[in-house]
Amino acid sequence: MGDLNRIRRVAERVAKVKTSGDDVVVVVSAMAGETDRLVNLAHEISSNPADREMDLLLSSGERVTSALLALSLQELGCPARAFTGRQVGIITDSSHTKARIERISADRIREALKEGVVPVVAGFQGIDEKSDVTTLGRGGSDLTAVALAVALKADICDIFTDVDGVYTTDPNVVPTARKLDKISYEEMMEMASLGAKVLQTRSVEFAVKYQIPVRVRSSFNEGLGTLVTKEDRDMEQVVVSGVTYDKKQAKITMTGVPDMPGIAARLFGSVSGANILVDMILQNVSQEGLTDISYTVPKSDSKKAFEISKRMAKEIGAKDVQIKDDIATVSIVGVGMRSHSGVAAKMFATLANERINIMMISTSEIKISCVMDAKYTELAVRSLHEAFELGKA
Amino acid sequence: MGDLNRIRRVAERVAKVKTSGDDVVVVVSAMAGETDRLVNLAHEISSNPADREMDLLLSSGERVTSALLALSLQELGCPARAFTGRQVGIITDSSHTKARIERISADRIREALKEGVVPVVAGFQGIDEKSDVTTLGRGGSDLTAVALAVALKADICDIFTDVDGVYTTDPNVVPTARKLDKISYEEMMEMASLGAKVLQTRSVEFAVKYQIPVRVRSSFNEGLGTLVTKEDRDMEQVVVSGVTYDKKQAKITMTGVPDMPGIAARLFGSVSGANILVDMILQNVSQEGLTDISYTVPKSDSKKAFEISKRMAKEIGAKDVQIKDDIATVSIVGVGMRSHSGVAAKMFATLANERINIMMISTSEIKISCVMDAKYTELAVRSLHEAFELGKA
Repeated sequence: MGDLNRIRRVAERVAKVKTSGDDVVVVVSAMAGETDRLVNLAHEISSNPADREMDLLLSSGERVTSALLALSLQELGCPARAFTGRQVGIITDSSHTKARIERISADRIREALKEGVVPVVAGFQGIDEKSDVTTLGRGGSDLTAVALAVALKADICDIFTDVDGVYTTDPNVVPTARKLDKISYEEMMEMASLGAKVLQTRSVEFAVKYQIPVRVRSSFNEGLGTLVTKEDRDMEQVVVSGVTYDKKQAKITMTGVPDMPGIAARLFGSVSGANILVDMILQNVSQEGLTDISYTVPKSDSKKAFEISKRMAKEIGAKDVQIKDDIATVSIVGVGMRSHSGVAAKMFATLANERINIMMISTSEIKISCVMDAKYTELAVRSLHEAFELGKA
Repeated sequence: MGDLNRIRRVAERVAKVKTSGDDVVVVVSAMAGETDRLVNLAHEISSNPADREMDLLLSSGERVTSALLALSLQELGCPARAFTGRQVGIITDSSHTKARIERISADRIREALKEGVVPVVAGFQGIDEKSDVTTLGRGGSDLTAVALAVALKADICDIFTDVDGVYTTDPNVVPTARKLDKISYEEMMEMASLGAKVLQTRSVEFAVKYQIPVRVRSSFNEGLGTLVTKEDRDMEQVVVSGVTYDKKQAKITMTGVPDMPGIAARLFGSVSGANILVDMILQNVSQEGLTDISYTVPKSDSKKAFEISKRMAKEIGAKDVQIKDDIATVSIVGVGMRSHSGVAAKMFATLANERINIMMISTSEIKISCVMDAKYTELAVRSLHEAFELGKA
C-alpha cells in the first residue's frame, strides 16, 4: 500500500472485481514508510525494544490501511467492512515479531461475504493464546493473504506488488529479462530463498502445502502477472526458468580441520546457537586427515560467525579461519533440470568462458548455485540468462 | 501525550511513583496531532466516513503511544506492559465514535500489578459485543482512566494535562485567575459543561457516580493540581468557586407563540430529533395568549435549528423566528450558593454596572448563567471575577 491515491486505485480495482460477480476478500499491508516510521519511534525510545510491545506498535500500520481502504470502497458505493487480524480469528504462536499462524477461523469473513460485503483485512498480524497482538515478520501481509485464501477455500490468491510478476532474472541487470506467465511452487520457493524479492518463501511454503494458486501481479497495471502453481508438463519442457543472485551473504572458510566425526556438528551447533542462519555449507573430501569447511551467512552476522569460528578453530585444532565479505551467489533454477542432463556442465562452462572463478558450488534437485567474487555478479547473471535462452518466449 | 520527549518525561515520572512503592496503572492518549492526522486521512478518502471504520482507524493512535510508553519504562528498568482497550476488557455499547462503557473486567491489569509490572493502557477505546473496536468520543482517554480507577478501586485518579489544574476562570482573560486546590464534583461538572476545558463532563459524571477522587495535574511540572472530590464544609464557605464562559452557542428566539399546551414539546421534539443538543431554554410568561421561546444550541448546528424552527413557526402559527450567532454565556459556579442569598442579585448588579445587557438568564442549584452579546464576554468575566474576589486565596 502506497499513499492515499494508491488506496483509491486499489478500491476501484476491488470494486470492479466485486461488480463482475466474484466474491473478494482484500488483505492490506501498511502504507509506504509507515512501518519504518513506527520502528524509528521505537528505536528512539529504546535501545532494545521488547518484541511484545513492538508487535502492538507495528500492527497499527495495517489497521489504519484496512480502515482507509474500507472507507474508500464504501465511498465508491461498494459495501465493505474492515477487520483486524484478531477479528478474522488469526491465531498464532507467541513468537513476537515473527509469529507462525496456527489456525484461522475466518467466521466473520464468511459472514460478511454472505451479506455481499467486501471484507478488508489488516495483514501481518494475529493474536496468540494470551490474546496479545503478534506480527508475522517480513512478508507477513502476503502470508496472511495466502493463509486466508486457504482457510476460505478461495479459487486464487492475487498478490499485488510493485512489479509485474516473476521475471527470468532481475530486469535491472538483464534488459532482456522476461516475465514468466507461470512458475511452479518449487521454483518460486528456490527463487525467493535465493534473493528474488517478489514473494517470501514462507508464503510460497503455505501455498504449496495447501495447493492454492497464487498470482503475483502489479498494483499499477491490469496485467495478469505470474501464476505460481503446481508443476505441469509444460514447465518440465523448460530446463531453466530463472537466474537469481544474492549479494547479501559472506563466506567463512576454516582450513586444516582435523577430519574427525562430530567436528562439523560442533562448529555449526555454535553458529546456529548464536541465532545465525547458515545458508550454504561445503566440505571437501579430506587429504592427509585434514579438510576445509566453507559456509555462507548473512553479511550482518558475518563478524559474529567469524569470531565463533576462530574460537572453535582453536578448540578443535584447525589451522586457520578466513572471512570474505565481497562474494555473491548466482543460481539457476528450473524443474526441468530433473529430466535434463548436462545443465550443471553448461553453467560451469558459461562461467568459465567469462573467466569467472567459482569458489563454492551447491546443488539441489531444481537449482544450482555458484559462489563467486561479487564483482562478477552481473556478468555471470547476463551470460547465464543468454546461455539458457531465457529472453526467448 | 506530546512527542517522544514528553513520553520519556512521563516514563520517568511513572517510574518514580512506582519506586516510591505505589502500584500505578497508566492510561495514555494519542500523541499530539496524531488523531487529527488520521481524521484528515479519512476525510481525504471519504466525504462521509463510516463510524465503524473511523473507530478502527482512530484507535491506532493510542495503541502506538501505549507501546512506546511501555518501551520507555522498560528502558528505565521499570517492568511495564502495554494493553489495548480490548485486552483490559473494556466493553462498550455499539455507538461507534461515542460509545459508552458498559463494563470493565481489568483482569489482565490485576495480573500485571500482582507481578509488579506497570500496565500501560491505550485510552479512548473498547470493543462492543460483536468484538468490533469502538471509541469513547472527546475526552475518551480521561474517561478510560476514571473508569479503570473505579474498576480497580484505586485510591485516586490523576489526569495529566496541559494546564496546572482547575482555575477560578480562564487565566488568558483574567491575569489574577487563581488555581483551585480543591473543587467539588458538582462544581467541576457545571464548569466543564459551561466550557472549562480541563475535564470532560462524562469523566466527572463517572467519578461522582463511584465517588473516586480525581486530580487534574500538569504533565510539565510536579504541582499537585486540583483535587476534584466530594463536597466538604470548606467548600460551602466559598460562595462562588469560578467564572466560566462559552462562546460556542447561538441563540434562536421564536416570538408570538400561541400559549397552548404541547407547543414546546413539539418544537424541541423536532430539534432534538435532528440530533441537535439544546443547552438553555427560556420561556416567559405569556401576555394576551402569546409568549416568546428562546433557546441556545451549538453554533455548528444553529442553521439547521433555525430552519426547523421556521418550519415549526408556520405549523403552530408563531409570529417570527430570529437567530443570533454572536452571543456568549457567562456563568458563576459554586456550591456555597445554596446557603448564601443575594448571589444572583450581586451578579446582575455587577453586569449592570458595566452596562452589559442580559439577554437570557438560567439558574441551577449551584450556577447562574447569563447570555449576552459576545463582545462583552471578557469584560463580564473580569468584573465578576473581581466582584466575587476570586483572585484572593
